[in-house]
Amino acid sequence: MPIYTAPVRDTLFVLNEVLGYERHANLPGFSDASADVLEAILAEGARLAENVMQPLNRVGDMEGCIRRDDGSVTTPQGFREAFDQYRAGGWMGLAVPAEYGGQGLPYVVHTAVGEYLSSANMALMMYAGLTQGAVAAILAHGSEEQKRTWLPKMVEGAWTGTMNLTEPHCGTDLGLLRTKAVPAGDGSYRISGQKIFISAGEHDMADNIVHLVLARIEGAPAGTKGISLFIVPKFKLDAEGNPATRNGVSCGSIEEKMGIHGNATCVMNYDEAEGYLLGQENGGLRAMFTMMNEARLGVGLQGLSMGEVASQNAVAYAKERLQGRALSGPKAPDKPADPIIVHPDIRRALMTMRAFNEAGRALVLWTALESDVAHRSGDEEEQQAAYDHMGLMTPVVKGVLTDKGFEHAVMAQQVFGGHGYIEEHGMSQFVRDARIAMIYEGANGIQALDLVGRKLAMNGGRAVQAFFKEVGGFCEAHRADEKLAPFTKALKKGLNDLQAATMWLMQNALQKPDNAGAASTDYLHLFGLVALGYMWGRMAKVAQEKLAGGVGEDVAFYEAKLVTGRFFMERAMPETAAHLARISSGADAMMALPAEAF
Amino acid sequence: MPIYTAPVRDTLFVLNEVLGYERHANLPGFSDASADVLEAILAEGARLAENVMQPLNRVGDMEGCIRRDDGSVTTPQGFREAFDQYRAGGWMGLAVPAEYGGQGLPYVVHTAVGEYLSSANMALMMYAGLTQGAVAAILAHGSEEQKRTWLPKMVEGAWTGTMNLTEPHCGTDLGLLRTKAVPAGDGSYRISGQKIFISAGEHDMADNIVHLVLARIEGAPAGTKGISLFIVPKFKLDAEGNPATRNGVSCGSIEEKMGIHGNATCVMNYDEAEGYLLGQENGGLRAMFTMMNEARLGVGLQGLSMGEVASQNAVAYAKERLQGRALSGPKAPDKPADPIIVHPDIRRALMTMRAFNEAGRALVLWTALESDVAHRSGDEEEQQAAYDHMGLMTPVVKGVLTDKGFEHAVMAQQVFGGHGYIEEHGMSQFVRDARIAMIYEGANGIQALDLVGRKLAMNGGRAVQAFFKEVGGFCEAHRADEKLAPFTKALKKGLNDLQAATMWLMQNALQKPDNAGAASTDYLHLFGLVALGYMWGRMAKVAQEKLAGGVGEDVAFYEAKLVTGRFFMERAMPETAAHLARISSGADAMMALPAEAF
Repeated sequence: MPIYTAPVRDTLFVLNEVLGYERHANLPGFSDASADVLEAILAEGARLAENVMQPLNRVGDMEGCIRRDDGSVTTPQGFREAFDQYRAGGWMGLAVPAEYGGQGLPYVVHTAVGEYLSSANMALMMYAGLTQGAVAAILAHGSEEQKRTWLPKMVEGAWTGTMNLTEPHCGTDLGLLRTKAVPAGDGSYRISGQKIFISAGEHDMADNIVHLVLARIEGAPAGTKGISLFIVPKFKLDAEGNPATRNGVSCGSIEEKMGIHGNATCVMNYDEAEGYLLGQENGGLRAMFTMMNEARLGVGLQGLSMGEVASQNAVAYAKERLQGRALSGPKAPDKPADPIIVHPDIRRALMTMRAFNEAGRALVLWTALESDVAHRSGDEEEQQAAYDHMGLMTPVVKGVLTDKGFEHAVMAQQVFGGHGYIEEHGMSQFVRDARIAMIYEGANGIQALDLVGRKLAMNGGRAVQAFFKEVGGFCEAHRADEKLAPFTKALKKGLNDLQAATMWLMQNALQKPDNAGAASTDYLHLFGLVALGYMWGRMAKVAQEKLAGGVGEDVAFYEAKLVTGRFFMERAMPETAAHLARISSGADAMMALPAEAF
Repeated sequence: MPIYTAPVRDTLFVLNEVLGYERHANLPGFSDASADVLEAILAEGARLAENVMQPLNRVGDMEGCIRRDDGSVTTPQGFREAFDQYRAGGWMGLAVPAEYGGQGLPYVVHTAVGEYLSSANMALMMYAGLTQGAVAAILAHGSEEQKRTWLPKMVEGAWTGTMNLTEPHCGTDLGLLRTKAVPAGDGSYRISGQKIFISAGEHDMADNIVHLVLARIEGAPAGTKGISLFIVPKFKLDAEGNPATRNGVSCGSIEEKMGIHGNATCVMNYDEAEGYLLGQENGGLRAMFTMMNEARLGVGLQGLSMGEVASQNAVAYAKERLQGRALSGPKAPDKPADPIIVHPDIRRALMTMRAFNEAGRALVLWTALESDVAHRSGDEEEQQAAYDHMGLMTPVVKGVLTDKGFEHAVMAQQVFGGHGYIEEHGMSQFVRDARIAMIYEGANGIQALDLVGRKLAMNGGRAVQAFFKEVGGFCEAHRADEKLAPFTKALKKGLNDLQAATMWLMQNALQKPDNAGAASTDYLHLFGLVALGYMWGRMAKVAQEKLAGGVGEDVAFYEAKLVTGRFFMERAMPETAAHLARISSGADAMMALPAEAF
């Protein structure tokens, strides 16, 4: 059976020692979550993940969800009870304001715990994640009455939420959507149409399901300018606000998918369902976008989660599986063979995963922290910089961490040899589950386009210039530090490649937009390497300072940071030059063939 | 439903125009398969793949194999009938000498058709592949009586074969194997032990199953020097050579796997089963190794097969799915959106797959052709060079084409967006099926070690020097050809990186073997890029000559070759420098952490 231990010590290292969590104690929420409280929350979240969620992960995969003839959906055994514990612990509303029943804690704390829970049981935690997304949308765009009506029960976890965007003919290109909304005359609308790929669309774990649905009001403009967002509950509420009458929305079928079997992916049919406009008429797309950053960060986090849990299992197997002898001579001469962790190529896999996971954790927590600053800071300049950072880094976190999370799940599976291919060991499930994160919430190609086509140029490139300045400043500030040289040199080289690629785009993509599209995925990953490399620079700096100050029993912890960081610099950063070369080759060969030639 | 069209025109281009198939007409087998016959065989194989095998691919995945309480195994519906057509067509013995019932045709022809059949239905074709491997072993090591006893029925396909190497505690490290063989006094042995991961170990498609089993004869030396190979049939034969009495071998269970559900992966229990020594006592490992090259080429071919069929489906979807508008302006203004093939990032995926698949096909066919030369040529020097080539290129073909095949199945799935994650579209199956090829027949890390640790140094580096000379000679010979410059320059740069990496290994791996292990996977892929780049150089040269000569309606075919090759040079070859950088960083950071630090 797969194992999982939440990396609490690592999270604390990043939050307290690298990112200076306590420096933000003046922000609302942070003051309620002092370093001690933070540690207690992480420990509690770790227990929930390890003891309650993780044991159900394989059960969820094997049983999957079952749709009954009446349209109801049964979740795997134990899911409801585990979700009860999640609700009871107040986890759903961890980062929701207290006035709507939440705990008002920082989003970064929610994110830190979210990693553990997703590692333990990604499919189950999606029911919570979708609800939190819907809560965020209602918080941002709902009227006061809508907030009072829907939020308390959702924050409590008694009701869950969904996001309904995709239709059979319309995924990325939402301008094509056809779901109709007809005014009913009483301020509500009648919603009709079909939505597909609706995660958590129907299930047996909540008293009501609050669907957020994109639809087109009769007579609205064509394309994305005519889309509105609606609240469409499974059960309409009575005068007391309790679920009462079944609404005209039902689950037509559930998809048979590659993974996340524990989460019901539904075809939802809307047949004159009663819906309530959320936000402005025809402002649906904008409303969706305001919550998209956090939703995408959440998916990036899933990538990290899968990479981390898969890596932990590969490590355990590599220490235990005896096969062959070390190239440098037997390491366990008393045994019939050495544990395979002695073999360099196995180490390569383990160190690669470790180096990316640790930097990935730092990057996602840094970005979540900036989200807190963006939302809570009173300082306008600080707030703007934080917004800039979050907007710029969101596609990077989503695209890079999910690509890497999948790649590392595959790598971890490979460590198991033939045993990794057998479902029993659980490695296949990590691969199959991790795969979806590269696709949903904007396929990674869309993240790359978002970065290259929107985020780079926004406000005259303010965000990207600030990032270059920060990373360049770090390299410059520590240039004389010989011990940090392996970090600053490789990082500077990577930054140079990234700046050259950015310059190339400025010079070549305006007249010929295909050059931007042709560069986008490479640019995303180039950006990701520099961002992760920068995280390693900062982590190494801290580790070095700590070691210089004497850290008692923690010596091994900080020394491992330096070694792992060095591995990243030597093994991951060389890729930046390859990305730059591909980017500068442009779109010509890529686009030369006519479609018929394929 | 997924589609598949065998790329016959491309195979013919590689065989006839690039590799000069006809130049080998003096070799036995080639004379029976003139260019016309070759074309007819490919067309017939294509029909079998497209019309008979492919329609059963998803059925096989969904139904899987079922083990009954009596230990029998039922294959998916239609498999037996399809296998009947395969047998009836004489495909099993296509490359087996006529004296044992085969058609005595070149191995390269078998390989070319094998790609189609695997693309169409990898799980089903594994029953044939395992049989062909067992046939090869008996051909190479069997006594004349053994050949007469076992081969005709196997070549006919009435009986199938298996390979039994792995045990629960022993995969890569065969020295640990425990299955026992006790002389029975009548020349036969009694075999006892448990084997796992036995593909096609039990099923309902053949009258007998001929297991080749590695076991240790009582009193044999420990480790790999004490292993012998045995023929252990499911049914012992009567005096007429017909299956008569059930032998002491049975399928204890079948594995629930990530993919290749249509192939039964069995736990095989041997309980004093009657077995017959194949080859020399304690010569089992050597006997296995003699067939390993072709078995590994066959698995490399599976990688290509999966990459090809996945890519074909991605192309079809990209031409049909309407979503968004081209960055350069609408391409299908009469439709609600453009087909997604207009988007550069989609093209990037399609062109990447295409460029690797076409070069991969050339590489595997080249190597198969050299296998024919190695086995059939009368010229000793030519034969030796061909053996060298095959030995050197086998781990490259196996490791690189299976890694890429999987990567491209994932890439093709990504083109489908959310639809790719739904089993119905079949893209998930390609990913799940392709995954095994990176693992079995020697996990790819083992291929990398085989290349770096064995093949490079063999005969004083004769094989690798010959390869460098050939590739370098090609670049030199066409240096003045300006039209070929994009090919020769990028190839030369890649070759320089490969030679530098080889030099680095010579200087750094002898005293410190961990440096070889740490470099191995990068070296394998660096080698692969140069080999594939060389294939593109040769293909481009041919295409250019043809275009210069005037090729009528085929202009588009050859122009597409030049564009696709240029894409490969621009987008794939930059990776060689990153591999070199990683290789030269050595093993220090990789091996620095003690196992406890993980």
